[in-house]
Amino acid sequence: MDLKSLIRHARGADAADLVLRNARVVNVLSGEIVPTDIAVAGEYIVGLGSYAASEEVDLGGAYVAPGLIDAHVHIESALVPPAEFARAVVPHGTTTVITDPHEIANVLGLEGIRFMFESAKYGPLSMYIMVSSCVPATSMATSGAVLHGYDLFPLKSDPWVLGLGEVMNFPGVINGDDGVLEKIGAFRDRVIDGHCPSLSGRALQAYVAAGVRSDHESTTAAEALEKLRLGMMIMIREGTVARDLAQLLPAVTPANHHRFCFCTDDRQPSDLIDHGGIDHCVRMAIASGLDPFSAIRMATWNPAKHFRLHDRGAIAPGYRADLVVFDDLQAPRPRLVFRDGKLVARDGQMAVPSRPASRTLRSTINVAWDSTSFAIPAEGRRARVIGADANRLVTQALVDTPARRNGEACADPSRDLLKMAVIERHMASGGVGRGFVRGIGLKRGAMASSVAHDHHNLVVVGADDVSMMTAARRAAALHGGMVVAEGERVIAEVPLPLGGLMSAEPVSVVRTQLATAVQAARDLGSPLHDPFMTMSFLALEVIPSLKLTDKGLVDVDRFEFVPLWVD
Amino acid sequence: MDLKSLIRHARGADAADLVLRNARVVNVLSGEIVPTDIAVAGEYIVGLGSYAASEEVDLGGAYVAPGLIDAHVHIESALVPPAEFARAVVPHGTTTVITDPHEIANVLGLEGIRFMFESAKYGPLSMYIMVSSCVPATSMATSGAVLHGYDLFPLKSDPWVLGLGEVMNFPGVINGDDGVLEKIGAFRDRVIDGHCPSLSGRALQAYVAAGVRSDHESTTAAEALEKLRLGMMIMIREGTVARDLAQLLPAVTPANHHRFCFCTDDRQPSDLIDHGGIDHCVRMAIASGLDPFSAIRMATWNPAKHFRLHDRGAIAPGYRADLVVFDDLQAPRPRLVFRDGKLVARDGQMAVPSRPASRTLRSTINVAWDSTSFAIPAEGRRARVIGADANRLVTQALVDTPARRNGEACADPSRDLLKMAVIERHMASGGVGRGFVRGIGLKRGAMASSVAHDHHNLVVVGADDVSMMTAARRAAALHGGMVVAEGERVIAEVPLPLGGLMSAEPVSVVRTQLATAVQAARDLGSPLHDPFMTMSFLALEVIPSLKLTDKGLVDVDRFEFVPLWVD
Repeated sequence: MDLKSLIRHARGADAADLVLRNARVVNVLSGEIVPTDIAVAGEYIVGLGSYAASEEVDLGGAYVAPGLIDAHVHIESALVPPAEFARAVVPHGTTTVITDPHEIANVLGLEGIRFMFESAKYGPLSMYIMVSSCVPATSMATSGAVLHGYDLFPLKSDPWVLGLGEVMNFPGVINGDDGVLEKIGAFRDRVIDGHCPSLSGRALQAYVAAGVRSDHESTTAAEALEKLRLGMMIMIREGTVARDLAQLLPAVTPANHHRFCFCTDDRQPSDLIDHGGIDHCVRMAIASGLDPFSAIRMATWNPAKHFRLHDRGAIAPGYRADLVVFDDLQAPRPRLVFRDGKLVARDGQMAVPSRPASRTLRSTINVAWDSTSFAIPAEGRRARVIGADANRLVTQALVDTPARRNGEACADPSRDLLKMAVIERHMASGGVGRGFVRGIGLKRGAMASSVAHDHHNLVVVGADDVSMMTAARRAAALHGGMVVAEGERVIAEVPLPLGGLMSAEPVSVVRTQLATAVQAARDLGSPLHDPFMTMSFLALEVIPSLKLTDKGLVDVDRFEFVPLWVD
Repeated sequence: MDLKSLIRHARGADAADLVLRNARVVNVLSGEIVPTDIAVAGEYIVGLGSYAASEEVDLGGAYVAPGLIDAHVHIESALVPPAEFARAVVPHGTTTVITDPHEIANVLGLEGIRFMFESAKYGPLSMYIMVSSCVPATSMATSGAVLHGYDLFPLKSDPWVLGLGEVMNFPGVINGDDGVLEKIGAFRDRVIDGHCPSLSGRALQAYVAAGVRSDHESTTAAEALEKLRLGMMIMIREGTVARDLAQLLPAVTPANHHRFCFCTDDRQPSDLIDHGGIDHCVRMAIASGLDPFSAIRMATWNPAKHFRLHDRGAIAPGYRADLVVFDDLQAPRPRLVFRDGKLVARDGQMAVPSRPASRTLRSTINVAWDSTSFAIPAEGRRARVIGADANRLVTQALVDTPARRNGEACADPSRDLLKMAVIERHMASGGVGRGFVRGIGLKRGAMASSVAHDHHNLVVVGADDVSMMTAARRAAALHGGMVVAEGERVIAEVPLPLGGLMSAEPVSVVRTQLATAVQAARDLGSPLHDPFMTMSFLALEVIPSLKLTDKGLVDVDRFEFVPLWVD
């Protein structure tokens, strides 16, 4: 809307397009509930108070907050492209997401990022992009693409690009790696998001001094407070596996709450649809004792300020009419959601049609099956074992003695000691990382997935090699996906042909497919909420402590490969 | 400092340049006092904690806050150019000022702005510029220059330009004036500062909707709160004449203090030197009951965020080492001031030499004296009279019956009814506005000044025409200045040859000259704190209610000329 029209609407010379009558506005600026009407023209709020309009909605005293903002999310983790992701989160009040498309970028590079861009531009959700800084995350895994500084620089001029995405290579920053510093230097005038689990002391100060001003990896209140004091915006994450809110909330005080916001990072469809995303964080925080104003600010104004989105995050003239209507201030459940002045969701359902992506993606699964084997020669006594945690991305570095058979080290499901493999799937190089894992809990059978952060090779966990091969081969045959198998039988599957990360089906279908697959894994013995997502992070070599990539076992604390056998 | 060196310093691999030991850091991020050391390398803070350094200063437990930020100041009102202005404010802890050079711009246009720029770039004070949006403020006065949108646009690419300066022409915005909307439109992606005394209701909403997101003209708590709720950053002003802090402070709450900052707007040298600037605001606010954290945030973090200065406003790694050291948290008086890591002031004195401006300015006084007269024919009975207020810029619109003599209306000092004139001094057009004023209080003699906001014509107030002409002619002969005269005798003067606004002398000299001139005015009967500054705002036709320009009397509430005579 042009400035002159906007002003005419605001001063009441032209009727508004929409007036929401009898609202109780959550004014995040003044920290007050203000009973008033809200006038909207085009995509903007034009006034608060008595206005004439061509359309009126009586809210009957309902609360209205600014549209919620997810400060950091990998849309790919919802297993659907942006248009379908919007169907999952917009009914829950999220109108803006800040996303780092580094999953698809690790598979398809700029082509993958462009695919996400396209959906960003015309959908019912504002999707901003933080350019993926770590593709690949490290050189300790094989990715499908490499993005150098000179690949990223042109993206700075895209209006949807806000800055540089989570700089996971914090050792590179601290040690002055030229490649990562080149990227940081180029984005020094923009927002630079961080990722530094457990980083502390001088190393943390060096990371922050470089200009990295946020973190979403704190898992304790003390860790969050150290980072906050040093200048980081603390993003409290409540994902599917990584659930940090309960641990971090005690760090929030009236004096420091301006330095917190919420994010979901990686959250699968049923969690998003059934429990919500940022609205879930707000409700949890209030239920845990945080005042509703602080909680709502952390979901609106604070991330808007951090990301320099000066047109949103508050309900005031000239701001975008991104609005969430709800009835209970103590447990906000969005009943109506407006984005850019248009009703986009009502009573938990989208009120506008989905806009399918017009762009397609090439098939991305390239595996050298002839040289792929899961056999682990029994070359030692005690082996390193990845200890998976149900609610954290950080693993434990365990040591245990695997069973042996015919000169090979084997899984031992009775002791929850499973075999794990990561099969390189971009270049058909034949690379396979092999190891052991505890915490997935399968008693028999296997799971495979082409979602394996961040390189997204094929990750397989199983009780026996036959089940593992069945699952892995089926995942490949689907051009990517998640598979549960037992012996030579495929039990359940979620096809993810878009980059091996995302489905071509509606999110409601994906949710059902995933629920079926998770149930199948549970039937095989896994007690986890989402064993696939837990498994997908066992391959992520930038989160402590012990991880497995296609190149081998990584001691993340020391940032180096370690042998499987201890002795 | 390059990124790699910064990181090396931060992680302790290279020794810091300076460590401030035993500091109590006012952490505006966390709202805590943190006892620690502060390490500085080059112009940046690199770490908090134990660091080695080539230079150490033991602070003995003193408090350290971020350098103070003046959110809105017209440097010209201190009657000195930026280098000397720095000498007045830096010892008081101000390390960054946001200035709108619209005084000099009204006299010399872009040449005047460039003069201010030059001083901004290498001095001991960070001086950012908001481009003057209203040159002239209105068409109801004659200015020395006109700046259109196309004059301003190139300035957007100057790194010291943050946005568009106070949009005083709020009626123009509200009524959709093309010229002002062109400027606002061009700066829509930057900060746009406002100026809207007493604006309220839909008119205010229209002004805010246009993107104007700050105001420093509120004079009551209710006015400030209405503006704050609608999205404006409220700048609490404590100038020489305009003193709003006591009135506005009750509006500040823990929940809304993030939407307030401090500014001085127009403050003369002795106020700045003797009482301070932003530090004075902080002390006043704390003395009035505001907690020190909120007060210091309002002077540091809040304005930094508003102006999108992401490199300052907090004490954390990677931030500029702009630091203020003081001993009493309840009444902060800067003892040491660091800017960009260098000690720039100690114990109220500059620790670095002043850097004089290398650029000069042409003489700017051009008056058609032959057609200049102060005679007011007695063409009516009751005349409009400007009622000056000692502590506000808003005047009262009074009506009174002037004395008469020989067919002329005369001053009547016994009833505090003085004559006032505004002589056009840019174009030698011969234009003279004439009227009456109450509140200046001279019993005899006259005052003249080439400082007369914002057009800066020659303003004269006096008890008789001879004294007025003596003062006015002397001000012109000085190429601009402030003069007190009685009869044909000049009693005191402050030469202001730079644009008729600023002195070429050191600020300490100007302060003494001004004190002498103010005392001379007092000796003639004026009870005002600074009658020159009060007088200078009597000509400002964008602040209610009745003002006088070289073109005549202006009813500001109706934004139109009105005749001198009521009946």
